[in-house]
Amino acid sequence: MRIAFQGEPGAYSEAAALRFSGHADVIACESFDDVFRAVEAGRATHGILPVENSIGGSIHRNYDLLIEHDLPIVGEVELPIRHHLLALPGTPIERVQRIYSHPQALAQCERFLRELPARVHATYDTAGSAKLIREQALADAAAIASERAAQVFGLEILRSDIQDYSDNITRFLLISRITEPDSPADKTTVVFSLANEPGALFKALSVFALRDIDLTKVESRPIRGRPWEYLFYVDIPINRQDLRCARALVHLAEFARSMRTLGSYSSWKSREHAVRVEQQV
Amino acid sequence: MRIAFQGEPGAYSEAAALRFSGHADVIACESFDDVFRAVEAGRATHGILPVENSIGGSIHRNYDLLIEHDLPIVGEVELPIRHHLLALPGTPIERVQRIYSHPQALAQCERFLRELPARVHATYDTAGSAKLIREQALADAAAIASERAAQVFGLEILRSDIQDYSDNITRFLLISRITEPDSPADKTTVVFSLANEPGALFKALSVFALRDIDLTKVESRPIRGRPWEYLFYVDIPINRQDLRCARALVHLAEFARSMRTLGSYSSWKSREHAVRVEQQV
Repeated sequence: MRIAFQGEPGAYSEAAALRFSGHADVIACESFDDVFRAVEAGRATHGILPVENSIGGSIHRNYDLLIEHDLPIVGEVELPIRHHLLALPGTPIERVQRIYSHPQALAQCERFLRELPARVHATYDTAGSAKLIREQALADAAAIASERAAQVFGLEILRSDIQDYSDNITRFLLISRITEPDSPADKTTVVFSLANEPGALFKALSVFALRDIDLTKVESRPIRGRPWEYLFYVDIPINRQDLRCARALVHLAEFARSMRTLGSYSSWKSREHAVRVEQQV
Repeated sequence: MRIAFQGEPGAYSEAAALRFSGHADVIACESFDDVFRAVEAGRATHGILPVENSIGGSIHRNYDLLIEHDLPIVGEVELPIRHHLLALPGTPIERVQRIYSHPQALAQCERFLRELPARVHATYDTAGSAKLIREQALADAAAIASERAAQVFGLEILRSDIQDYSDNITRFLLISRITEPDSPADKTTVVFSLANEPGALFKALSVFALRDIDLTKVESRPIRGRPWEYLFYVDIPINRQDLRCARALVHLAEFARSMRTLGSYSSWKSREHAVRVEQQV
């Protein structure tokens, strides 16, 4: 298993890849586009993409890419996010005048940052910010990134667990050309668009409600090129080959302008449980 | 009318404020929090907040602030977004090695940026990026910002309309302590949370569908402190005092764990129409 991720070594995506499979090789990519390309070209067997954070919400860009490309979702991972303030060894916190990190990470440490007099700079990457401090030997700067980023770039943790909320979890999806699941699929992600008319979403959701299929996520996303029209993403806790699911999707296809199943895969809950049982055996 | 906005003079929020009322005074604020505080303290009569872009999706932070604070929504504005590449006068595009802008603006000009060899830097602000180039006299840098920002900071437009999609529209909400609407309200924004059980959203939406009330927007947002539980935002094209709306909301309150009407206001469509008629008279 060779998993492509976006970011520098020490990125949260890398940690998520290793949480999915401790034995996997990981390949750092510059952009999310590059993650897809690495899988399409066969340089990686899998790609990993953050799609949702329990505090910050969805990462729409990656849903867009899932639609543009033709790689199915084959798995998911949930990763608790722990942010730390990193600086060159020996830097006292009073000396820190600039703090670098990704806008989402900065937003997640807002309360902590409000107490500091330092100026905040948004960058593309948490681990990349740590790299910047090491490479440019910035003695009056700090980065917000993971513990792994501190190790990778030889930085010291000035303050640990600086996120505002302790239940900060990011959900990642795995994509692959290999659609054979390594564990039974119990979750399905569907995307659809609807005619812009009263009750359209209500009718669409009825195909699941009528069959007692729960929705574990619903998200609307503006359709590019058609202002204020929406795509909907739905997660349902059922295999697409289950008869109830198959019937619901046929029923949905009657209303929807467009519809696509992005993948059926093993939910993190069941996978985490399976891994734990395996380790006990 | 004194409208507080987030950003530097030349920001898109400022343009939206002036589009809402050409005669308004505008007050620049550092953060969205400060916009709320300016209205609460009476330094401004209104505040303006971007909440949704037709390409990029919702700006969740501002929905969070609407819930945290107690200021009702009293209006909305839609503003077409036109991004330009700005630099010090006389800068040839070949000399541009760094481009500064807000991450959303950078994402909206992705195709344009891919063609340039320049490095891209994320900042907090489009107009603030223009200001940076002027203040630090950066001869090899450019900013992505509005035409107004070029005027305010004495920059030249190197390339105009560089956004990937021409139908790039941002929707702004106006908040105020003065709840007397200046035009009839025909739109209502409601926020609610639901028990985490099968069919909950379906039931909630039925209160509108049963009364033929259309949904012009549905958005789910993770609830802070409760991973994977969601708040829902709904826009409906009806005044809250309309009997159908009032009944739907009473009905919704039966299912919802929590529910709040964020405001009833004049939709941009009807307001834009009213302004046009006024000008013709």
